[in-house]
Amino acid sequence: MPVDSAILTPVVDILDLLGVAVFALSGALLAAKERQTFVTMAFFALVTGVGGGTIRDLLIGAPVFWVGDAWVAAICLATALIAWLTPTSWWEGRLLDFADGLGLTAYAVLGASKAMSYGIPPFPAILMGIITGCVGGIIRDVVAGRPSIIMRPELYVTAAALSAVLCVIGKTLALPDAITWTVATVAGFMLRSAAI
Amino acid sequence: MPVDSAILTPVVDILDLLGVAVFALSGALLAAKERQTFVTMAFFALVTGVGGGTIRDLLIGAPVFWVGDAWVAAICLATALIAWLTPTSWWEGRLLDFADGLGLTAYAVLGASKAMSYGIPPFPAILMGIITGCVGGIIRDVVAGRPSIIMRPELYVTAAALSAVLCVIGKTLALPDAITWTVATVAGFMLRSAAI
Amino acid sequence: MPVDSAILTPVVDILDLLGVAVFALSGALLAAKERQTFVTMAFFALVTGVGGGTIRDLLIGAPVFWVGDAWVAAICLATALIAWLTPTSWWEGRLLDFADGLGLTAYAVLGASKAMSYGIPPFPAILMGIITGCVGGIIRDVVAGRPSIIMRPELYVTAAALSAVLCVIGKTLALPDAITWTVATVAGFMLRSAAI
Repeated sequence: MPVDSAILTPVVDILDLLGVAVFALSGALLAAKERQTFVTMAFFALVTGVGGGTIRDLLIGAPVFWVGDAWVAAICLATALIAWLTPTSWWEGRLLDFADGLGLTAYAVLGASKAMSYGIPPFPAILMGIITGCVGGIIRDVVAGRPSIIMRPELYVTAAALSAVLCVIGKTLALPDAITWTVATVAGFMLRSAAI
Repeated sequence: MPVDSAILTPVVDILDLLGVAVFALSGALLAAKERQTFVTMAFFALVTGVGGGTIRDLLIGAPVFWVGDAWVAAICLATALIAWLTPTSWWEGRLLDFADGLGLTAYAVLGASKAMSYGIPPFPAILMGIITGCVGGIIRDVVAGRPSIIMRPELYVTAAALSAVLCVIGKTLALPDAITWTVATVAGFMLRSAAI
Repeated sequence: MPVDSAILTPVVDILDLLGVAVFALSGALLAAKERQTFVTMAFFALVTGVGGGTIRDLLIGAPVFWVGDAWVAAICLATALIAWLTPTSWWEGRLLDFADGLGLTAYAVLGASKAMSYGIPPFPAILMGIITGCVGGIIRDVVAGRPSIIMRPELYVTAAALSAVLCVIGKTLALPDAITWTVATVAGFMLRSAAI
């Protein structure tokens, strides 16, 4: 399968780590709310943080991005540590929802973008973005045994879809990646924020 | 891994798309019952429709069948559109259960058949058929947060098992594929229908 | 990816089958408690038994260990048969929890060990051990629609972590595999047993 080396640029890497960190935070905080131990919080941080990207990589036949890389896992652990050391009240309110929304749209953009770099056609690439954006939160909710976030009557999947579509349009028009990624992530995040 | 080109024949392709469509319908209708948006319905249609085949392809080391193909995803979207545009009352009653049962057995046959084409021994091939038949419905139910269909005290896994076993027997006896697939799908579907 | 042939030694194979069998038993017994049919019990035995190892193999890019091998599946079926033929009262009490704990730690050791054999760095290898140890039980609980075992306020993930860490330390120090595996599995299992 052709691998576009652009996927390895620092910007994608940073976006990827951003998506990991915000999802990891939402996973760790969910475990914290349930009064779990630190190890379980770290487990939730990891599974939520890397879940979406893992499914994306398995689907497009890429090596799973965090398995050969110590940074990603370290970020999940550090995020769990922050969630563990700080009072839960810091994270009350809607901050967690916004973090989840940013992870959702950042992963939607990354999923679509990496899929296109692997030669996936535009339409499946959009779907790949949506699925990988939503999977982290679904795994978190399903493992915790609470109703999945996508079942709430809100614009959730739709926000991921907007980000993924804009990303694929930008890539098809050959716009600069930095602009495409920023616009796509921000647009989806604004739509999601409006629904929170 | 040896790839039998027979897997690419039109009949398998049509069966595969049939399995996708009926599972996609059951996913879209579940989301419709929960009064979700169209995008969420489409997401459920996709995840339910391709879930079983995706697991099958990951397990046997094949490229995931819908990722490089725009048709499969288009069918899921079209199915979601149909479910969205038609009154829910059309789909009341047991139609959804029958659709699910047909998807179950069609996927069980396809999973076993494709596994054998990839050189998997008969016994694991049967299990592959059963697992891939059941996974679409399990993912749908788990993501929706409702009790999984396989926990109901009905003949569900057993119907998938019957289809997968008949398929592997037919393939081992070198019967014509069209006959094997038809008999195996119909037999499992009849057993499942008796239980509905 | 470099494959260390040591992974194919009899000891690992036996440990792998042990992990499969105890998890399979816990899956079959859960289905038995819900008064499911034998086929559904066998399905739960299989999914629970091979779930952790399947995720491990997908993550590290190895062929899925049970797909080309008839033994693993046969062990799951035999375990389901035992659970089906014996009175449920035999399995009451904490035996199931101990079986699950042994599967957890045996898989944590195996996951970490096989990951290192595939050239995964130590830290991700530990995480791989933890994830693969916990996934079998999570799949079992999620599919059955009951609260996942890792949400109980007990030392569960921590026991898997202890086993995986000890395994990676032992491998890094080049201790004999048999000693490393035994010590790591037993230590994690004792921690888990203390929590039951």
